[in-house]
Amino acid sequence: MRIFSAFISSSASFGHRSLSRLSLRLLSFSRIAIPMDAAEESLRRALAEKQSAIETQGNAVRSLKAAKAAKPEIDAAIDVLNGIKLEKSSIEKQLEAAVSGNAGDGVLSREAFRQAVVNTLERRLFYIPSFKIYRGVAGLYDYGPPGCAVKANVLAFWRQHFVLEENMLEVDCPCVTPEVVLKASGHVDKFTDLMVKDEKTGTCYRADHLLKDFCNEKLEKDLSISAEKAAELKHVLAVLDDLSVEELGGKIKEYGITAPDSKNPLSDPYPFNLMFQTSIGPSGLSPGYMRPETAQGIFVNFKDLYYYNGNKLPFAAAQIGQAFRNEISPRQGLLRVREFTLAEIEHFVDPEDKSHPKYSDVVNLEFLMFPREEQMNGQSAKRIPLGEAVSRGIVNNQTLGYFIGRVYLFLTCLGIDKERLRFRQHLANEMAHYAADCWDAEIECSYGWIECVGIADRSAYDLRAHSEKSGVPLVAQEKFSQPKEVEKLVIAPVKKELGLAFKGNQKNVVEALEAMNEKEALDMKAALESKGEVEFYVCTLGKNVSIKKNMVAISKEKKKEHQRVFTPSVIEPSFGIGRIIYCLFEHSFYTRPSKAGDEQLNVFGFPPVVAPIKCTVFPLVQNQQYEEVAKVISKSLTAAGISHKIDITGTSIGKRYARTDELGVPFAITVDSTSSVTIRERDSKDQIRVSVEEAASIVNAVSDGQMTWEDVWSNFPHHSSASTE
Amino acid sequence: MRIFSAFISSSASFGHRSLSRLSLRLLSFSRIAIPMDAAEESLRRALAEKQSAIETQGNAVRSLKAAKAAKPEIDAAIDVLNGIKLEKSSIEKQLEAAVSGNAGDGVLSREAFRQAVVNTLERRLFYIPSFKIYRGVAGLYDYGPPGCAVKANVLAFWRQHFVLEENMLEVDCPCVTPEVVLKASGHVDKFTDLMVKDEKTGTCYRADHLLKDFCNEKLEKDLSISAEKAAELKHVLAVLDDLSVEELGGKIKEYGITAPDSKNPLSDPYPFNLMFQTSIGPSGLSPGYMRPETAQGIFVNFKDLYYYNGNKLPFAAAQIGQAFRNEISPRQGLLRVREFTLAEIEHFVDPEDKSHPKYSDVVNLEFLMFPREEQMNGQSAKRIPLGEAVSRGIVNNQTLGYFIGRVYLFLTCLGIDKERLRFRQHLANEMAHYAADCWDAEIECSYGWIECVGIADRSAYDLRAHSEKSGVPLVAQEKFSQPKEVEKLVIAPVKKELGLAFKGNQKNVVEALEAMNEKEALDMKAALESKGEVEFYVCTLGKNVSIKKNMVAISKEKKKEHQRVFTPSVIEPSFGIGRIIYCLFEHSFYTRPSKAGDEQLNVFGFPPVVAPIKCTVFPLVQNQQYEEVAKVISKSLTAAGISHKIDITGTSIGKRYARTDELGVPFAITVDSTSSVTIRERDSKDQIRVSVEEAASIVNAVSDGQMTWEDVWSNFPHHSSASTE
Repeated sequence: MRIFSAFISSSASFGHRSLSRLSLRLLSFSRIAIPMDAAEESLRRALAEKQSAIETQGNAVRSLKAAKAAKPEIDAAIDVLNGIKLEKSSIEKQLEAAVSGNAGDGVLSREAFRQAVVNTLERRLFYIPSFKIYRGVAGLYDYGPPGCAVKANVLAFWRQHFVLEENMLEVDCPCVTPEVVLKASGHVDKFTDLMVKDEKTGTCYRADHLLKDFCNEKLEKDLSISAEKAAELKHVLAVLDDLSVEELGGKIKEYGITAPDSKNPLSDPYPFNLMFQTSIGPSGLSPGYMRPETAQGIFVNFKDLYYYNGNKLPFAAAQIGQAFRNEISPRQGLLRVREFTLAEIEHFVDPEDKSHPKYSDVVNLEFLMFPREEQMNGQSAKRIPLGEAVSRGIVNNQTLGYFIGRVYLFLTCLGIDKERLRFRQHLANEMAHYAADCWDAEIECSYGWIECVGIADRSAYDLRAHSEKSGVPLVAQEKFSQPKEVEKLVIAPVKKELGLAFKGNQKNVVEALEAMNEKEALDMKAALESKGEVEFYVCTLGKNVSIKKNMVAISKEKKKEHQRVFTPSVIEPSFGIGRIIYCLFEHSFYTRPSKAGDEQLNVFGFPPVVAPIKCTVFPLVQNQQYEEVAKVISKSLTAAGISHKIDITGTSIGKRYARTDELGVPFAITVDSTSSVTIRERDSKDQIRVSVEEAASIVNAVSDGQMTWEDVWSNFPHHSSASTE
Repeated sequence: MRIFSAFISSSASFGHRSLSRLSLRLLSFSRIAIPMDAAEESLRRALAEKQSAIETQGNAVRSLKAAKAAKPEIDAAIDVLNGIKLEKSSIEKQLEAAVSGNAGDGVLSREAFRQAVVNTLERRLFYIPSFKIYRGVAGLYDYGPPGCAVKANVLAFWRQHFVLEENMLEVDCPCVTPEVVLKASGHVDKFTDLMVKDEKTGTCYRADHLLKDFCNEKLEKDLSISAEKAAELKHVLAVLDDLSVEELGGKIKEYGITAPDSKNPLSDPYPFNLMFQTSIGPSGLSPGYMRPETAQGIFVNFKDLYYYNGNKLPFAAAQIGQAFRNEISPRQGLLRVREFTLAEIEHFVDPEDKSHPKYSDVVNLEFLMFPREEQMNGQSAKRIPLGEAVSRGIVNNQTLGYFIGRVYLFLTCLGIDKERLRFRQHLANEMAHYAADCWDAEIECSYGWIECVGIADRSAYDLRAHSEKSGVPLVAQEKFSQPKEVEKLVIAPVKKELGLAFKGNQKNVVEALEAMNEKEALDMKAALESKGEVEFYVCTLGKNVSIKKNMVAISKEKKKEHQRVFTPSVIEPSFGIGRIIYCLFEHSFYTRPSKAGDEQLNVFGFPPVVAPIKCTVFPLVQNQQYEEVAKVISKSLTAAGISHKIDITGTSIGKRYARTDELGVPFAITVDSTSSVTIRERDSKDQIRVSVEEAASIVNAVSDGQMTWEDVWSNFPHHSSASTE
């Protein structure tokens, strides 16, 4: 009975809603309810008033004309009308500016900025649309040489910052995953987006995207809509993720939305599973999928990993690898792709003790946080000390807080602008029913605030799901230093008596008795003791039966327990590496005038840890001796594992700097003598002079963070760059 | 005509045969024709003679009995019979030993050795059968924590040794690949294995595996087969890869091979495509596959990469990533899996100049090579200086030779035993028709000689295939310093005259004329000039036509050319990372007696560059002060990026060493005072004493190769280990 009702409630709480649960874990875009701006609302009302005043005054003018009134009188009325029209036009302009946000020009300049970044990225082969010579595939991108190096650097730093620092157990599981695993995790049934089809051409669209586009366009371009209508559209945008399949279909019908390409009518929405399906082995009988996340590979290995860790909690496992998501119609370039690299951590912890031994390392960090309450009240993100957020219970526990702090350090070390990074807490309706708390690291870029890391306390959900499906208990034990005495309720149905009384219904009655909770059982015990008999509702029979004293023994017994067995909670920081890299590209990009001032030069201001190439080596002029020196330095750099480029073409030094600034190369060694060389730093353009022998080791030291450029700058003679740049 | 006949011949040369082309590129097992051992042959003949002698003598005994001969006479005949039987039994024993190779016990000990390695690998979580709690999936394995670290180390070293050293352009392309790309590469049509099905249960088997198993088992276990039969079976094994689908089916029928599990009859063999198929996007109209190799991602990007390299040849591109192969029935554990990591290099080079600027770096290397000729003559691999192999033309060109040398250095630096590594040249029938030369780095392990790296000169095949299919020319240009005068053959069919003469067949005749090669055209020119008319076979019409002088103009014209446009050749070293790692596990594994001598302890003797954990830190006894020191050292190690483990459990130091030796940890720091500590090296068990401050930097230096243990040993005071181990 109890089991049955639990099943019902868990099944109900999984509806279309659960889509967003799963998809949010996979870094989908978050949409926050933004209350309608007061200014905008009053402008819409003023606009409607003016429109109605224009109609009234227009009627007045027409009446005067019909009545053949005197010309001065008619002219005066027309002047009034024109005056109102002018006022209306002015309000329209204000409204236009208001609806495009602080944006106004902002929207345009954001898009122009993005275009400049993307052009540079594509031209310098940071990335390439995959299979370009075959006209590409939407949502698939290659990293070209500098992009691939940035990615390798980000992953190496991730390993250093998380895996090595915390002694995490890194694993590497296949992408091909049998159905049973993803059935247990819920992905086979619930990892879907709602899709509509063009009824004539069969082209597919994401239903929520069409509705979103419709609302946004209406709000931005149709100034004639009423304040009420605008509020309604804004409400739809706010609850987009929460709409049921019927509500979504209803809205699409109500607004008369058609296929964007053909204007044909659309089908009703229906769920489309986002996993790439395949078949394992030749028989066609073993369905499999390309994993939608790396986490499941860790969960199914919990037992072995726990053993490997000496049967001790807490510990964390980690995995870096490809994940796949067969998007219906990918948009937003590098941010929404069909194949991407995830780096995921599963930190397993005793649910009764979520403290973290290194919590004190992060307690004093302070950065932008956007708690649930602030979002509901329409406030904005604010700077809160992490320790305060945890102690005030805004962040659920220390371990979750610790990882939020570590993620902050990770992203800012990579070069993410800390003013454009915030941690946003999931609203109650965004979170899975089992989750204890959930925060997203969101980075602002030209597309808005983008979820790049999810940090969730998923409680015991995943381990329990796999325990149930596989039959292998995924649990931890806490051995007590000395046995503990516990009182346990024991319900012992007397099967012989129950069999005599209820014959074929005996089994139902036994199950119902055993399923009683503590209070029900103690009430029954009391009633049996006082009255000897009690009416008892058996859910599976749908009726009351009469239970007598000899039919069940209910008692509380004291037992000695030597250990506690429990399912650990899991705290999961999950990193969308491609999204972090794209935001990093935008945050690192700037332009500056060329020396002649006749053009703007592009620069990627990557920190050395991320830079795809750490250093270039140029002979100042084409010259056998200088080239030899350049080669000697190059050899030392290779030996030290420093990626670099040697350029012995005769191009002018200014052009060479411009070329490498655009690749984000932080240091350049210029050979202008056989004994000493200069080292130039990209952003300051400052140069120092060092001996040939020192050059490689200095670049090595500033590249791997042993020294900063400031250290170098204060220790070596400066070199005037006037002649070269 | 030429085009047509070229199509025919290429299609013919792609038959079932082409399977092995593609599969060999993907690291399938190589099978070499081994001539039947002379001793074995004479034993089989002797055995057959004895068998027939037994029959003859048996008949004689029966005749004597039937003729009621005298008892002594019968007894004497029986003695002779028993004598022959004894001789036969002795020959059987010799033959048994001979057929199991030098093996005999060898086979058993190889399997026992493998079992010891695999047990240790599984117990210490180097790898785990994937989805184990769901009873796993054949051919899928996870790397657990130490295995994952070894893999990351191997890949990092690969990047340093190849990508950084040669300034290669590394790219990172998706696994999901649209059909058109793999159609062009030949995988959609030809990447197949032949499969047979159990006709009753539907279970699938690889046809060649069943035939191979049958032959091997017959040869090893059935001593009664004749020398001729044995030679036939050995021949079948030798040509297994070359059998057509009909021949393979015929042999299976002839030998009466049935399904191994059920003994049911088998279907005829038919091709099964080894790619995992999926569908891209929601429409179901865009078939895609999980890539079977990473190389195609590089080929389709050739144009952009060539541009990135300043339109200069040679250059190399590289990619590390997952590849997939839906094996029919995977065997041989970690060596034949359905998902694996490949690291591939595509070195693009002018086909007219395959020299390599760094060739001199490898010219003096000398290692085991196994050229085609030695294989054909039944000789074994021999030590040849690389320079000699190239200069004698055994290795086709310098660049191929350079990479063979670099692969040798790579594998031996990782810890592959150079006595169990050989470079085997492909036999003519193993190589694709377009390949110029092909060598496999084969490593000997308990499964035999395993192909781990393929190094092929694939000529212009891949780029041409994608040029043709995509319509995008994938070519390079060589600009001449001054224009060159070249003579070119011009064939100009006179369409008007041909139309009058051949009407609807005009097009076929024109194409056939244009398709003539230089010799054919010049012969026709001479014939037309002398006779005015010539018979000409038009393949597409299937008949001769009569060509007159006025129907075609054939001339040689001089032209000035400013550049040469050509399709680069590609030299492709392709590394099966998982196979290399497995062989490394076997080559690194050894056992040694414990101090008490009561048990054998396992050791993985990984070189520091590969070791999953570089160092452990132990306080000698449980003690607050020592633990503090251990933590300080641990912090310095983390800062230096050295993966290590700190163990403050109270276990005896000997047990701790044994535990970490089994993980291949090369160094152990034991804290036995607050001022100085000891560092112990795994294989020698030697210990030195150093100050607390020095400990981390010394381990750092010996771990990343700045120093060897020998350097350290001669520079620091030695510590007697008698008390601890």
